[in-house]
Order: sequence, then C-alpha cells, then structure tokens
Amino acid sequence: MILKIYAVNFNEEMPKYMQITRHIKKLIDSGKIRDGEKLPPIRKLSLFLSVNNDTIVNSYKKLQSEGYAVQKIGSGTYAKKKDENRKLKRDYAETFKRISGEDLNNYIDFAGETSCNVFFSINNFKEVINEVIDRDGVNALIYQETLGFEGLRKNINKYFWNNKLAIEDILIVSGAQQGIDIVSKAIINVNDNVIVEKPTYNGALFVFKWRGANILEADMTEDGIDLENFKDILKKNRIKCFYTMSYFQNPTGMTYSLEKKKEILKLAEKHDFYIVEDDYLSELIYDSNIKYESFKSLDVNDRVIYIKSFSKIFLPGIRLGYLISPEEIKEQVENSKVNTDISTSSLMQRALDLYIKNGYWKEYINKLKCMYLKRYTYMEECIKDILGNKVTFNSPGGGFNFYIKINSNISINSDKLFYRCKRQKVLISPGVLFYRDRDDGLKYFRLGYSQTEESKIKRGIEIIDKILSAAEIK
Amino acid sequence: MILKIYAVNFNEEMPKYMQITRHIKKLIDSGKIRDGEKLPPIRKLSLFLSVNNDTIVNSYKKLQSEGYAVQKIGSGTYAKKKDENRKLKRDYAETFKRISGEDLNNYIDFAGETSCNVFFSINNFKEVINEVIDRDGVNALIYQETLGFEGLRKNINKYFWNNKLAIEDILIVSGAQQGIDIVSKAIINVNDNVIVEKPTYNGALFVFKWRGANILEADMTEDGIDLENFKDILKKNRIKCFYTMSYFQNPTGMTYSLEKKKEILKLAEKHDFYIVEDDYLSELIYDSNIKYESFKSLDVNDRVIYIKSFSKIFLPGIRLGYLISPEEIKEQVENSKVNTDISTSSLMQRALDLYIKNGYWKEYINKLKCMYLKRYTYMEECIKDILGNKVTFNSPGGGFNFYIKINSNISINSDKLFYRCKRQKVLISPGVLFYRDRDDGLKYFRLGYSQTEESKIKRGIEIIDKILSAAEIK
Repeated sequence: MILKIYAVNFNEEMPKYMQITRHIKKLIDSGKIRDGEKLPPIRKLSLFLSVNNDTIVNSYKKLQSEGYAVQKIGSGTYAKKKDENRKLKRDYAETFKRISGEDLNNYIDFAGETSCNVFFSINNFKEVINEVIDRDGVNALIYQETLGFEGLRKNINKYFWNNKLAIEDILIVSGAQQGIDIVSKAIINVNDNVIVEKPTYNGALFVFKWRGANILEADMTEDGIDLENFKDILKKNRIKCFYTMSYFQNPTGMTYSLEKKKEILKLAEKHDFYIVEDDYLSELIYDSNIKYESFKSLDVNDRVIYIKSFSKIFLPGIRLGYLISPEEIKEQVENSKVNTDISTSSLMQRALDLYIKNGYWKEYINKLKCMYLKRYTYMEECIKDILGNKVTFNSPGGGFNFYIKINSNISINSDKLFYRCKRQKVLISPGVLFYRDRDDGLKYFRLGYSQTEESKIKRGIEIIDKILSAAEIK
Repeated sequence: MILKIYAVNFNEEMPKYMQITRHIKKLIDSGKIRDGEKLPPIRKLSLFLSVNNDTIVNSYKKLQSEGYAVQKIGSGTYAKKKDENRKLKRDYAETFKRISGEDLNNYIDFAGETSCNVFFSINNFKEVINEVIDRDGVNALIYQETLGFEGLRKNINKYFWNNKLAIEDILIVSGAQQGIDIVSKAIINVNDNVIVEKPTYNGALFVFKWRGANILEADMTEDGIDLENFKDILKKNRIKCFYTMSYFQNPTGMTYSLEKKKEILKLAEKHDFYIVEDDYLSELIYDSNIKYESFKSLDVNDRVIYIKSFSKIFLPGIRLGYLISPEEIKEQVENSKVNTDISTSSLMQRALDLYIKNGYWKEYINKLKCMYLKRYTYMEECIKDILGNKVTFNSPGGGFNFYIKINSNISINSDKLFYRCKRQKVLISPGVLFYRDRDDGLKYFRLGYSQTEESKIKRGIEIIDKILSAAEIK
C-alpha cells in the first residue's frame, strides 16, 4: 500500500477529519483508489498524517456514511466507488413521476410493471367498500391488527392455499416491496451474505444494500439459477438467504423447473439459509406446460419466506400483499412489521377480503389473463419479425415482460438506448438497472406489455428498430 | 483480557465457528463477559484456540447477527447483552393483539396511544370515499405517485402551512412510524450517532437500533431536553441526528420552550446535525399558555426533518402521515420511500384530501379536543386525590398521557406493576419500555386516557392504588 497519495495539506478552516474525508473521496472518484481497494489501517494513516487515531476513525465513518467505504469485520475499511447508475436511475424514476395520467397517453410505455386498469370494474369495488363501511362502521378505520384483518387472512388461506395454512401464519403487508423490506430488517444484518439472481429486481437490491449485506450473484439460466454457480458460492460463503422470483423472474422472464426448486430446497436445509420467494406474478401463466408449484408449497423443512403481492396484478393503488414466514423467525418478522408501519390500512384489507369472497377477484384475473395472452403473442411476433436479426430473446410463457439481448452487430448500450427511446416517447427498462455491477447489463433491455395495447406495441418496436439500425456495425 | 474463559473443548459434530459462538453466547448470558466488554482480537483468539482467523471472523459475524455483539470501526468487536425487556415487550404487545374488539370492553385501557372513535362520523367518511370513487374512477386505485396524491399535498400546504411550502416539499407516508423508518434508512448508517430524549418512544428506538446506530440519551426536563447534557454529548461525538417530540413528548408529556427550540436549532447548524421532529399530537393543546410553534416553523437553515402523523389523532386504520425534508436529502428520502413500499394507498389519500377540504377534519379535531380536555382534567384530579402520596407527576397541558413516578416509599418496579395491573384487567405502560437501558425506567409508568372514559378512569386508578398500597414500605 502506497501512503503517499493520502498526503493532505491541512488548512485551518475545516476540521482535519473533514479534509481527509474530502481528499479520499477525490481519490476514489478519480480512480486513484480503486473500487474495493483496502484503505490504510487507522494507526498507519494517523502516523503518516500526524493526527490522532480518532481523526482517522471519524473520517472513515464519514466515508462510510456517504457510501464511499464499507467496513468488513476483522479486516478493515474498503473503498467503494459511488453508484455510476445514479443519474440513470434518477432519470428512469423521474420518467414515471413526471409523465403520468393524461401525459402518458402520448408515450408508448414498455416499462410499466403493474397491470393496467381497463378491465377493472370500479363498480364492484365501490360495492364492496360500501358494504364494508355499512357492516363494520368506524371499526373499519380504527382497528389495528398486526397480522392483518382476520377475515382476509382466512380467505387467503381458503382461496389460495386450500386451508393448508394456519391463519396465524399469514401476515398482511403493504405490497411486496414492503414484504422484502420487513423480511430484510428481520433477518439480515451488516455483512451478512445474500445470494440474488443475476439479473434481479432492483428494488430488492436496494433493500439488501440498505441492510449492509454482501450481495452475491448467481447467473440465471432458462430453468432457474445456475446450480454450479450457486453451489460454488455456498461452498465459499455462509449464506443468510437466497432471494428468488420463482415464476417469470424479473427481468429475465424465466421460470424454475420443479427439479431445480427441489434441489435448492435441499441445499437450503444443508447449508442453513432461507429462501425468500417473491411470488409476484404467477397468476399469469399462458403456457400450459408451466405448472404452478411455489417453493413454499414444496417446503418441508420450513426454509421458505414467501412474499405475495396483490399490487402487481391487481391494483397498485391499494398496496396490499402478504407474507408467510418459517416458525422460528415469525416473531422477528412480526416485530419488524410493527416497527415499519404499525399495520396495513384496515379498510383496504376489508375491501379486498370481500372482493375475493364475492368472486370478483377470480373473474378479474381471468379477464386479465385472456387479454395479456393476446398481447404476449402479438409482441412476441413483433419482436421476431421486426427486431429478429438485431436481438436475441426467450419466450417466458407468462408474465408481463420480454428480456432482450442486443446482438453484437449493434453497437449501442442499454442506457443510451433508454435515452434515445425516451426522446422518441418510447419507455423501456435498460438492463444496467438489474445488476449489482452495471457493466453486466449493458447489452440487455426489458420490454413490458402490461400498459400497452397492440396498436402501440407495433409502433414502439418499429421505433426501437430504427434506433438499433442506426447503431448497426456495417 | 483473560483468554482462559474462551477455551472450548471442540467436538466433531458441529463446525468450530458454531461451537465458539455458542460458548461466547453462554459467557455473555451468564455475565462472565460483561455487556459492552471488548472481545479478544481475532488473531489473538485464533492463536489461543488453534483455529483459522476465518473461524473467529465467522463466529463474530454470527454473534453480531444474533444480537450478541456489535462492531466498532477501528476498534474491534464488543459483547452485547441480549435485551432483558424481550419477554415484557412481547407480553405488552401481545396484550393489544389478543385483547381487542369486544374483549377490550372488559378492560380499563390506560395504554392505548391513539384517539378513540366515538366522535367520528362514519357518514362523513362514507360520503367522501364515494365522492372520490365517482370522481376519479379506477384511477383512485391505480395511480401511484411517489410523493403522494397532489391534491392532498396542496391541501396540507394550504390548511396546515398557510401555503408557505412548495407542494414538492411534502412526501406522503403511511403513518409516522413509517416516516421514522424512511428517514432513518435515508440518513443513518451503521455506527452513526443519534441523540434521543430520555425517555423516548420505543418504536423510534427500535428503528435506530435496526440501522446499527449508536444511541445517546439526553435527559428530559420540564421544558425540553437538558441542554447541558445535550451540549456535553455534542462536544464528545459527531452526531447525525436528534430525534425529538416537540409537543407532549412521549412518554413524559413535556413540551419544549421557544428558547430551547431556538437554541437547539443553533446547535444543529453549528454541529452539523439534523433535527428529526415527530409532531405527533400537537393538535391537542388544552393549556392556553402553550403556543404552537414547531421546530420546522422556526427552521431557517434547513436542519429539520418534520414528521406528521394523521393516524394518532385521526383514525389509526387509515395509516397516513407526511414528511418534510431539507433540500439536500430530499432525493435520498424519496428513494427511501420508493424502496420501502413504493407509495401510500392512493384511495385513502384522496379520501383524506376531501375530508380536510370539506371541513370535516377541523370539526372532528375540535370535538376531540373538547372531550379530551374533560378527561384530562378529571384524570389529573383522580391521580392527585387517589395516588397523591404514592406518586409524583407533572401536568402536561395537552396530549393523551400522564407520566408518573413511583415514590421511594413504594417498593414495586414498573414491569411488575404492569403484570399485576393486567391481572386485574387494567392496562398500563411500564417505564422500562422507554429507555435504552431498562433500569432507568423501573420507577415510572405512563397512564393514557385516550381510550378510557371518565367512569372507568376512576375505577382504574383505584385498582392501581391498591396494588401500590400493597407494596408500601411501612
């Protein structure tokens, strides 16, 4: 380790630890200290700079709190390059904040991640919500149960689990994102190892980073995670949990084979880790070869933490989902819920409960499935016909998305593709968002059809084709 | 440091790091390693036990993940005694989970923390929710705005801030608990220092511990935090934020003086920390000498993160609140919201919006104030008359609670008092829940009147009196 680059000409205006922090940040930003490089031991640097140990400790803390360093037990402090995706992430999120409502009609939206509203009968919903208010009165608004409204838990057990669960097993949450957050706070601590699929859902990556977890990626293949890769990680690391989307994985669209699920459940038992199953879209199976069997339903050793969202497929504005935890962590998970937001909106839970009981849920899902199958088939054709020689992709057989690889004869990266498409009012999701290291996603993008009807699908893909053509290597 | 006690007779059945972990846990539980005692350096212990460094690293990680150890930068790993309050906390929480609805009528509830429902007009609410559904149709259920429904933000600005804010300054959250969680995830990292009032709200303590923060306590006095104590902490530590409840602090009921607020704002600027102001109950001012001026309204240097709950005073089941952040951390806080639960229930936001606009909110708060003033006065009298020679307390002049000190002639601790009261169907909040170190709260308890009408107040206090009398030192 060369200490010379750490030399600081101290001035009197600012505390020394701030000056050291600022200097090291510059070194990291400029690449003079590499991402992941170990910073000098505290004593060594304090001697070199003729300052107290505490000054260096404060500086390293400051670096850590600003995301420029991470600490590893028994090892020291390591440099961390700031997120290069920051601008892109902001612009991507802005897109959906700024372009909304009426405005959105002028866009072709291949980036939306939730079901669209055209088939939803607001009258059914109005009916159930009034029924709830008339039945429960002010209790519908005042009652707080940590686990959630008992009626809803009963009906979830009845309609989705054939009464195989106990209703105490079910915890109602405010959507799947909250489910991931609550579980993470309950079981993941700083420096714990978490395996994720590569690529994976960026909202989950964000949460695991918040907890200070070490994120390890295992490649996705056509029938789930690459097992060799996975086992290799298990050999070298003690793992807290594995985060997985078992059906129509986001973004790849891949679905786990039964064998793979069984094998992973065995590994979970052997290596003592949890499987966090994010079952976000398994209602939309179009391919009759795909059978629905969640990790949870195959779980005999109480290894699976199951998270179900109602918001993706149903209505995002109602923010509901549920989770099922293994017995041994149930109390922690419940505490985590209380200290996250006390409980989930009671009125919404009661309304959903009636909505399911009255049969509206099933009716609605069937309508959606029918419509999305049409869009899926049409989009598959369009991509093949129009983009065929420029990209490669797999057909997921369900869900909302196609994950697409840009062929090597096209010299454009996915972040650039995002900006160029956006300028032409087409919204896509660039692959760089789905990986721990952005470089891995430069050649991928995701196209979703949840918000976009057939006539727009074709037009959008033609625009993408023009942009890709302009980048073709001749 | 004596290494001898760390000796382990290894067996073949379990990995060595597990055996070491188990052994150290026993040493901590039995008190042979004290709370806060430094564990041996990794190399030293690995040499002593003839194992690899990695084995000790894994063991220390495991201890940390189970809450038996904490790590400090540049210093090492320290033992942590497991939470002695665990059983009490569970029993306290269980109380509210198990005893609910009809059941609760058989209890005298001095522990409830939210307003009661008797004065709430469900018809007004039914009217606004139907108006929303008729006006916005399915959009009321599908629309997701990170910052929250624009109409509601406009009305919050208009009715609560005299249009002094920009509507982009306001972020709608799912209640104050979520506000604290979101802010903490945005600004607090492992080993950051947080100052809290002593005693304070246990839901906030929980969140700060989750973030791995060092929690520093400053004593509460009658007009806010003890400034000498506070300054002393600032002299010795770099502080990330100070968490405060400016009106009717929970649990003490104390309210900050204007001078103290100004002084703390100056200190925040000088020492570069944020003030997290949890304005949870300032609507309920009974004492006309108390003027409403939040830290936020006095803040000229953008130092205050303001959190407002609608759930405490309004209806807990609707889970709504908002927060206002300083410009420089707004983006982080917004990201934190997205990655916590995407957004808050859209329908509930729209309903509250109309509820405020139609004047129902103001009407309801006035009714509540009138009723709670009566209960407040009556309970104050009852405590004085019945418990006068056994306890000491201050009159807060607003809010929901009295915080009561058990005089030294009564030999009972607050946790025991909780269990004895519960056996006689009276629910109180024991002081041990509100301190970082439980011992500090052994002689205090909180009595709230939010859920309990006059006739029950007297009966409940008479029961407490009997229990205290039985513990009197003669």
